[in-house]
Amino acid sequence: MDANTGFPLIVSTISGAIGYLATLWLIPRVSQQFVKIGLFGKDLSKRDKPIIPETIGAIPATIFILMMFCDIPILFYKDLLSIKEPAVVHFFPHRKLCEFLSAVLCLESILLLGIADDLFDLRWRHKFFLPAFAAIPLLVVYYVDFGVTTVTIPPFIYKIFSTFKPTTSAMITPFPQFIDLKWGYYAYMGCVSIFCPNSINILAGVNGLEVGQTIVLCIIFLINDGLFLINGINEASKHSHMMSAVLIIQLLGVSLALYHYNKFPAKVFVGDTFCYFAGMVFACCGILGHFSKTTLLFFLPQIFNFIYSVPQLFGLVPCPRHRMPKFNENDGLLYPSRANLLINEKGEAIRIKPIAKVMLKLLYLLRLIDLEFDEKNGEVKSCTNMTLINLILVWSGPLREDKLCQRILLIQFIIGLLAIVTRHVIGAFIFKHDNLWTII
Amino acid sequence: MDANTGFPLIVSTISGAIGYLATLWLIPRVSQQFVKIGLFGKDLSKRDKPIIPETIGAIPATIFILMMFCDIPILFYKDLLSIKEPAVVHFFPHRKLCEFLSAVLCLESILLLGIADDLFDLRWRHKFFLPAFAAIPLLVVYYVDFGVTTVTIPPFIYKIFSTFKPTTSAMITPFPQFIDLKWGYYAYMGCVSIFCPNSINILAGVNGLEVGQTIVLCIIFLINDGLFLINGINEASKHSHMMSAVLIIQLLGVSLALYHYNKFPAKVFVGDTFCYFAGMVFACCGILGHFSKTTLLFFLPQIFNFIYSVPQLFGLVPCPRHRMPKFNENDGLLYPSRANLLINEKGEAIRIKPIAKVMLKLLYLLRLIDLEFDEKNGEVKSCTNMTLINLILVWSGPLREDKLCQRILLIQFIIGLLAIVTRHVIGAFIFKHDNLWTII
Repeated sequence: MDANTGFPLIVSTISGAIGYLATLWLIPRVSQQFVKIGLFGKDLSKRDKPIIPETIGAIPATIFILMMFCDIPILFYKDLLSIKEPAVVHFFPHRKLCEFLSAVLCLESILLLGIADDLFDLRWRHKFFLPAFAAIPLLVVYYVDFGVTTVTIPPFIYKIFSTFKPTTSAMITPFPQFIDLKWGYYAYMGCVSIFCPNSINILAGVNGLEVGQTIVLCIIFLINDGLFLINGINEASKHSHMMSAVLIIQLLGVSLALYHYNKFPAKVFVGDTFCYFAGMVFACCGILGHFSKTTLLFFLPQIFNFIYSVPQLFGLVPCPRHRMPKFNENDGLLYPSRANLLINEKGEAIRIKPIAKVMLKLLYLLRLIDLEFDEKNGEVKSCTNMTLINLILVWSGPLREDKLCQRILLIQFIIGLLAIVTRHVIGAFIFKHDNLWTII
Repeated sequence: MDANTGFPLIVSTISGAIGYLATLWLIPRVSQQFVKIGLFGKDLSKRDKPIIPETIGAIPATIFILMMFCDIPILFYKDLLSIKEPAVVHFFPHRKLCEFLSAVLCLESILLLGIADDLFDLRWRHKFFLPAFAAIPLLVVYYVDFGVTTVTIPPFIYKIFSTFKPTTSAMITPFPQFIDLKWGYYAYMGCVSIFCPNSINILAGVNGLEVGQTIVLCIIFLINDGLFLINGINEASKHSHMMSAVLIIQLLGVSLALYHYNKFPAKVFVGDTFCYFAGMVFACCGILGHFSKTTLLFFLPQIFNFIYSVPQLFGLVPCPRHRMPKFNENDGLLYPSRANLLINEKGEAIRIKPIAKVMLKLLYLLRLIDLEFDEKNGEVKSCTNMTLINLILVWSGPLREDKLCQRILLIQFIIGLLAIVTRHVIGAFIFKHDNLWTII
């Protein structure tokens, strides 16, 4: 796999195209089998509440992995030939093969976890940490091949801290320009591998949104990889981004085919399987490509959605079982769904904590939530559920499902582009240099 | 991973023990979940035909893979430490890590295939070749690390052929001592990876037999690995057998726990998942350990069962849907099941080919089958189904299910021991040398 020729890109484009066609062909042929074994769900945002096959994301994920297997001998073709030539020193890039194998291994593990979750509806506490297990081979390969656990401190920060330091002793250690996080960095990468799969899974509930956000992320990642491959000055980072581009192009191929069936009105549901799988592809790229911090920057909408959800996820504000927007049968539009703050789902009266009330009112003033007040005593009766999807509906008013999805994807795309600019322009100004250029 | 210390063996024994305990603990806790989602079967060889959870083999297989993940950093602990010491040349055995990763990848792929098969009841023509896909990473690593595609011809054979060659020309090439099979050798290894998983799957149908034969194979493999590790004269083959022993010890751990629940009277069924998985562990050991020919020798009972089944599998003799032995409710014993040669399962009259009749009579004379004759015209009415299980019943008369299973396992164990002797003693005499010793 040579980062200085376009060969890996050609191979992955061809196999991405094959993956696209195979997914497009296979889904309609096997999706009824999924319904037969009980993998189906009702689409509640439609008038007739149709029954739709679930977990169909397992198909593109399996095709992705099969294509990766077939790619291995092709991508390493030259290297494989060279070791058989007696005139050449027998050298094979085991390192690169290790990276490749560990990525596929990690993806297959997350696919298994996703299928188990879709089949058995695993509990949160059981499944939350499992992606970190899947990432073990990835972290071992990272340790062996990069082992970089230092984080660069922006010059202006260490200047400020250096100024504050007492200057009485001549022996003081200067405030560091780099911090070595050591094992903390591996814990951090483990967290990335837990966050990425789960974050796509919780920004969901509208036809096409799970696959749509995957496609947008693919485009953002590819732009970033392209910048490095065209302008990169560092050989190692070029290789990392070639590896990332190979994975992302193939993910884009199968995702486009899946989107064809999952877009409004959905003919199939993707299941947790696909969300986990797609999220893990991005985590793999970020970790093996040594750009896991940039990866998180591209996940800003998902991070916002997660932080915004925290008061409900951790029980400060009541959280109904489903927080999807509410479908109105009369006008066919989606409205923000609401959490009842007076009565729980069992019909019992509840009292929320005073601090939660203050927080809700603050969010209401910031237009980050909509509240419903009792006409008599002015008491808060309900709040809109805290998800990005509901927030968009609070801001824009009721929308049809496809318009809502498009709007979220557009916002995500713009934020992604801004993240790239931030990373390479503002980042370069802060750190005085960038992998792409140096600010003198 | 050092083949000259016992460290990998200690690690795998500990993680095998953990795997044993985890499997033992988990199976009773989750098996009802399998029944809930429709993964169950009826045990037809019991009086009350109880409903029993199916596909439980997915649990030990998943635990096996999790344990392997945890083993990676421990097995490579020393190597991981050494690359951080600035005084030492940075060297990491990527080769060995590649082997390890490709084995786990292959096993995870076959686990996925097994689960898909148990869920969707895949058709033969769809699933038959899929294990070969799973083996691609294995074959790439084999190509890179060994690349040996020559087969040694026993001296007495090439002597015979050399004698027959015309000796008129002085320029004739001598009959070769080695044959280079080139791509044929990879095709052959692909076949091994298809055969091993499927062969365990077709020697099945009696409580405990699938897991039992896996345990027997584990013991046989371990004896063979032990011979190489203790007496081996070749460093590379020692390493291969260490790798094999690590995999097999862990498989033994989880299999023993599964056997506890699957033995007569079975509380769980293992499913195709476990058969494929266990078979692939042996195929991995054989391929990566460069002893795939010896591996086939250890699979003699399965090979016999397959060849013996061929007339029915390929339609020369009628093949009923199930060929399991027949349970007699009155005495609680199993009797050989029979294929009707006059009427098919739809009740239509059939005529079998004359050549098939001749073959059946020949097998009958050799006591390899039992025939039922019409009292009036002496026509053959039915034959016992051609499986090893039925053959044992033909030879020994009706048996209780556990006795039948034990008898098959005993035969398999004896054949396995004979195979080891053949490989190392007779093999050494034929080839004049062996990895363990040289005959002068």
